[in-house]
Amino acid sequence: MAGSIYGKCFKITTWGESHGPALGVVIDGCPAGLPLTEEEIQVWLDRRRPGQTAISTPRKEADHVRILSGIFEGYTTGTPISLMVENTAQNSGDYSQIASCYRPGHADYTFDCKYGRRDYRGGGRSSGRETIGRVAAGAIAYKLLKTLGIDLWAYTRSIGPVSISDQHFDREASRKTVTGMPDYTADREAQAFLNSCMQEKDSAGGVIECRIDGIPAGIGETVFDKLDACLAKAILSIGAVKAFEIGDGVLAAASRGSENNDAFVMLEGRVTKKTNHAGGILGGMSDGTSIVLRAHVKPTPSIFRPQETITSDGENITLEIKGRHDPVIVPRAVVVVEAMTALTITDLLFENMYARMDGIKAFYTKKDR
Amino acid sequence: MAGSIYGKCFKITTWGESHGPALGVVIDGCPAGLPLTEEEIQVWLDRRRPGQTAISTPRKEADHVRILSGIFEGYTTGTPISLMVENTAQNSGDYSQIASCYRPGHADYTFDCKYGRRDYRGGGRSSGRETIGRVAAGAIAYKLLKTLGIDLWAYTRSIGPVSISDQHFDREASRKTVTGMPDYTADREAQAFLNSCMQEKDSAGGVIECRIDGIPAGIGETVFDKLDACLAKAILSIGAVKAFEIGDGVLAAASRGSENNDAFVMLEGRVTKKTNHAGGILGGMSDGTSIVLRAHVKPTPSIFRPQETITSDGENITLEIKGRHDPVIVPRAVVVVEAMTALTITDLLFENMYARMDGIKAFYTKKDR
Amino acid sequence: MAGSIYGKCFKITTWGESHGPALGVVIDGCPAGLPLTEEEIQVWLDRRRPGQTAISTPRKEADHVRILSGIFEGYTTGTPISLMVENTAQNSGDYSQIASCYRPGHADYTFDCKYGRRDYRGGGRSSGRETIGRVAAGAIAYKLLKTLGIDLWAYTRSIGPVSISDQHFDREASRKTVTGMPDYTADREAQAFLNSCMQEKDSAGGVIECRIDGIPAGIGETVFDKLDACLAKAILSIGAVKAFEIGDGVLAAASRGSENNDAFVMLEGRVTKKTNHAGGILGGMSDGTSIVLRAHVKPTPSIFRPQETITSDGENITLEIKGRHDPVIVPRAVVVVEAMTALTITDLLFENMYARMDGIKAFYTKKDR
Amino acid sequence: MAGSIYGKCFKITTWGESHGPALGVVIDGCPAGLPLTEEEIQVWLDRRRPGQTAISTPRKEADHVRILSGIFEGYTTGTPISLMVENTAQNSGDYSQIASCYRPGHADYTFDCKYGRRDYRGGGRSSGRETIGRVAAGAIAYKLLKTLGIDLWAYTRSIGPVSISDQHFDREASRKTVTGMPDYTADREAQAFLNSCMQEKDSAGGVIECRIDGIPAGIGETVFDKLDACLAKAILSIGAVKAFEIGDGVLAAASRGSENNDAFVMLEGRVTKKTNHAGGILGGMSDGTSIVLRAHVKPTPSIFRPQETITSDGENITLEIKGRHDPVIVPRAVVVVEAMTALTITDLLFENMYARMDGIKAFYTKKDR
Repeated sequence: MAGSIYGKCFKITTWGESHGPALGVVIDGCPAGLPLTEEEIQVWLDRRRPGQTAISTPRKEADHVRILSGIFEGYTTGTPISLMVENTAQNSGDYSQIASCYRPGHADYTFDCKYGRRDYRGGGRSSGRETIGRVAAGAIAYKLLKTLGIDLWAYTRSIGPVSISDQHFDREASRKTVTGMPDYTADREAQAFLNSCMQEKDSAGGVIECRIDGIPAGIGETVFDKLDACLAKAILSIGAVKAFEIGDGVLAAASRGSENNDAFVMLEGRVTKKTNHAGGILGGMSDGTSIVLRAHVKPTPSIFRPQETITSDGENITLEIKGRHDPVIVPRAVVVVEAMTALTITDLLFENMYARMDGIKAFYTKKDR
Repeated sequence: MAGSIYGKCFKITTWGESHGPALGVVIDGCPAGLPLTEEEIQVWLDRRRPGQTAISTPRKEADHVRILSGIFEGYTTGTPISLMVENTAQNSGDYSQIASCYRPGHADYTFDCKYGRRDYRGGGRSSGRETIGRVAAGAIAYKLLKTLGIDLWAYTRSIGPVSISDQHFDREASRKTVTGMPDYTADREAQAFLNSCMQEKDSAGGVIECRIDGIPAGIGETVFDKLDACLAKAILSIGAVKAFEIGDGVLAAASRGSENNDAFVMLEGRVTKKTNHAGGILGGMSDGTSIVLRAHVKPTPSIFRPQETITSDGENITLEIKGRHDPVIVPRAVVVVEAMTALTITDLLFENMYARMDGIKAFYTKKDR
Repeated sequence: MAGSIYGKCFKITTWGESHGPALGVVIDGCPAGLPLTEEEIQVWLDRRRPGQTAISTPRKEADHVRILSGIFEGYTTGTPISLMVENTAQNSGDYSQIASCYRPGHADYTFDCKYGRRDYRGGGRSSGRETIGRVAAGAIAYKLLKTLGIDLWAYTRSIGPVSISDQHFDREASRKTVTGMPDYTADREAQAFLNSCMQEKDSAGGVIECRIDGIPAGIGETVFDKLDACLAKAILSIGAVKAFEIGDGVLAAASRGSENNDAFVMLEGRVTKKTNHAGGILGGMSDGTSIVLRAHVKPTPSIFRPQETITSDGENITLEIKGRHDPVIVPRAVVVVEAMTALTITDLLFENMYARMDGIKAFYTKKDR
Repeated sequence: MAGSIYGKCFKITTWGESHGPALGVVIDGCPAGLPLTEEEIQVWLDRRRPGQTAISTPRKEADHVRILSGIFEGYTTGTPISLMVENTAQNSGDYSQIASCYRPGHADYTFDCKYGRRDYRGGGRSSGRETIGRVAAGAIAYKLLKTLGIDLWAYTRSIGPVSISDQHFDREASRKTVTGMPDYTADREAQAFLNSCMQEKDSAGGVIECRIDGIPAGIGETVFDKLDACLAKAILSIGAVKAFEIGDGVLAAASRGSENNDAFVMLEGRVTKKTNHAGGILGGMSDGTSIVLRAHVKPTPSIFRPQETITSDGENITLEIKGRHDPVIVPRAVVVVEAMTALTITDLLFENMYARMDGIKAFYTKKDR
């Protein structure tokens, strides 16, 4: 099993190390007939690419994606889609420092414990570059969802102590600000905060919020594969995420039933709810309203202060990490949250197709064979 | 797929409705040679049973478990273990009210959306009684873990505004207090708070914490099946849970790298960490220290105040829920959190067995066939 | 994993030993809205029941099935369906002989090798009674397929040297003859052959053929989960099956391309084939014509002649098996072949629903939420 | 799900079309610490490469494999291994003929039925080149098995009417003969037969046999995931295979219990069997003796005679296939049978590791963490 395969119906297998020849993903279970180009995937990869702003690492990572299979004459064919990004800008020489010691907050130690060895160059498989495969596959899932009228988007909700405000909320801004915040004011404050972190050789964490609109009611399975349970796994599988909330999340636990219950109401002939404390999910299934989730991301563990740690030989040392590291993970993880959410929703949409006899009957009758 | 199967190696399939003839679980993948009795499972089921205290529903639910297969001469045989609890105290007449309307905060509406019908008696499959199968299977996983030197236990961390304090922390107390709190003082305060909720025909939420000790380093898979990701899914699959935290969780996102990083240090010849903000997991794998997770549970949705809602025919109505309902879900969910945690750890322990060639070689050499 | 779960979409988990309290199956993934009664399942279980004829064991096995969950007001609800058959006629005393030795042709030895122990009473989990769960679940899959216009039926093709002839072929006969042959003449010959086997304290094997009609083209996945590959696994998972053929099978390997290729031809506006050497499957997908498969079943391993074998302590002994054993497995396995075929087809029909964007789009548009 | 992923523990995902940019495979779940080079994989790919003999197609397919991830300093690291073979010699122009018609015996028609479109160049995903991924992954599984003392090898048993004889059996010959037969005499006869087929613009089928030695007893799961059931699926998943046999297979069904039962006997302190009609498997588990299976392969469907068929527009036509096609599939499929067998055995070996408490306990105690 080994953990690099995700999904039950729309299955992705990611592969690749930070400093190996390439990274990629194979999607098995993408339906035939979806129009798809490399450019559509490249847009998503460009969103996770660093190097353009003061708060992201200035390494040049072109990350050019190639489609190697599964597309013919511009459409998916139903066969596996193989996507590859060659590593062009990696320099193994930079990373010799971490070959023999365990960086605090990183997976160096646990990789060695599990496998007895690790590719230490640039973090190997535990590098942020591992998300390239997720994002490339997520771009396809996202396009598929759009075709079905489902929209989703994520943005930075907070960085350190700086949160966005409802008054300045501007969805479009989140694609333009350095921090990914949908609020120009908060973005400026967060940048100032990050600058102070950098000056102090320190790093910051933050919160990413994701919203899904247009999902039909009844998506998600009722016991173990609840929609929110699947989303929780998807989000926690992203390195550095330490908490997951659906709807009011942590606040729900502190509220009362009379506050937290969302009243159902008929509005223009449609079922809706007066409030949405639940975050669009009841009993593990979508209820037809907006789904809202949050990912809490820890501060970048690579900081430039001297830190206590040990070598792989068990010696206590003081480590000073070199190289270039973002002072915050959040802005570049926004697109990863979108990708994992899109993959999860797609998977459960497919699974839902055989939930009822009438749907199955209509499907096989309509095909008229 | 359909969602009532959990686990990849140690697989459980739960079944049953609140008011059907019985509920149960089948465990496929329990290793041979584990001594097991009905009594050991019954102890766990008794912990989730209501009816003994002022804050839990006085319905009499004997919930007597029977082992139907997989045990021979007191030991597991490696074949599926089927466990069944017959429903003896259910009275279908009580629940006619909810047959035709959608209770706020419940899964009535989404069940109808997904399946076009539902067994409305006592909530059917979305009843809290659904957890009987989880808890019975969890009892077995727990025993298996104990055999390997792994211990886990959960307790109530807070109810509404009342939290336990580190000063009064008393592990044993959590099995004796009405609220499941390991703190007699907080327990009394929480009970007072719950009484006020009941007088106001309202309900409360809270937080459950679970701690796992003795787990070897390296458990969990590195990308999608991270240990914390799997735990997040396990915990969010429990009805009413709205947020999941590992280690410092939400607080980690608000902290700085210099605070959140846990320094490695050699102590008496063993690798350990100076702090444990990470909650025992790095890069999705256990690091050999204690794992700490939290589940945030919403208030009981069944409250006795009149509530706005709609009927299945789309009429706006005012609903007054009758019957007997706990003012808080948390105390009875503690054992469910333990069960889901034990199942998840067991599953990943098994999966880890083929992570390395040396382990595989030793295994098949030792067997000497 | 452990092997007692079958299917990816329509999943069944079987459990139970020959002489335990009960045997059963849980079906997870049965769509909501299928009308279902215990009687419909009972008919299938009665077909695998022994005791009515000279060639089957006169043990009385009532095998009465109970539905414990998943059905409400006569329809499936989409939640797991739990079916149970209590063991009423088993007498543990009869089987003490096999506790300490390994019967040739049986799984006694391999069970001990794998698990270090086994429930030896009546063969435990390796008894033919293990198929009760398969057959009960198969009855549901069969009903579901019928609803979609798909029919399947199996019959005995040969027993020992006696084969059915095309001239006397009579479909209805296969449900009435002692041997399950659709040919009264061959049935009489086969009975005579079996009587001679019994007189010689010996047993016979044979061949079961199964035919599926009405399956739409395109069912089955293209590489590893080919329809014929999945059927092969399903059929070989039945104890005593030693070979599987699809279409011309073994004969295809001996033929030439010019003979074996089936010419496509338009007939009354529909695509069809002039011949069906392929057995209804091309490239792992159904081609819209009849699917034909065969299961080759070994002779009953329990024979009454003295046999050489060893004890679990490694002593060479001569074993004389006592008790009552059918001289041939084939007739009672016919319904098991039908069950496994129905389960497999159902599973792949569901999986096929998300093979194309147009189908997915039509599905989610039609639902009009 | 979609069918291009194989295995539960040692999982492979294959991808690629005959005339796309490349083909490949990702292996997720290969344990860390296996020494591995591109050369070791290349040897296997070279065995499936055509072009050297009179009976195989003279197309030049270099099929050079590259390792893109999962290996570091000569050893597997436990992370996914990505292998890629670029398509260099494909000429899309050759295949325009089949774009609009359905070749008899091919998957053209069923691909169109399932997906509504297909990559028709060189057969796309249904080309024999699809097996490149299987063979590359199989090379790794084979090496892993060798490390554990398990050996397997396949060879051609018959082509058309020509079978190998026990008298001339020569294991080494099977790697040298044009036909893959371990018998120089039969090889010459088979070549003569194939030449006559080619002169008659016809093709032939045949049988591949595979033998596995050194597998410990108890491998395979007891109900649905029987070792022989898993092997049957593995073998039938290879295009053109129409029947599967384990041990005596078809002959077992025609024999009597007294002939077919294999007597157990102690030999030099070890359990063995006097005969091996069962083919090394009892009750779905290996019994410690040699496993023997056979794959029956249909004749190459691409023959040069005029054939009746239809266009995708539903017109009856006469088709004359051009290009270069082997008159027999069998010799090149021998290595594919080995690959699928090695993958299946590896998978079940891993799964078996958690079958018993004593094995699990020893594993986690030994690791001493």
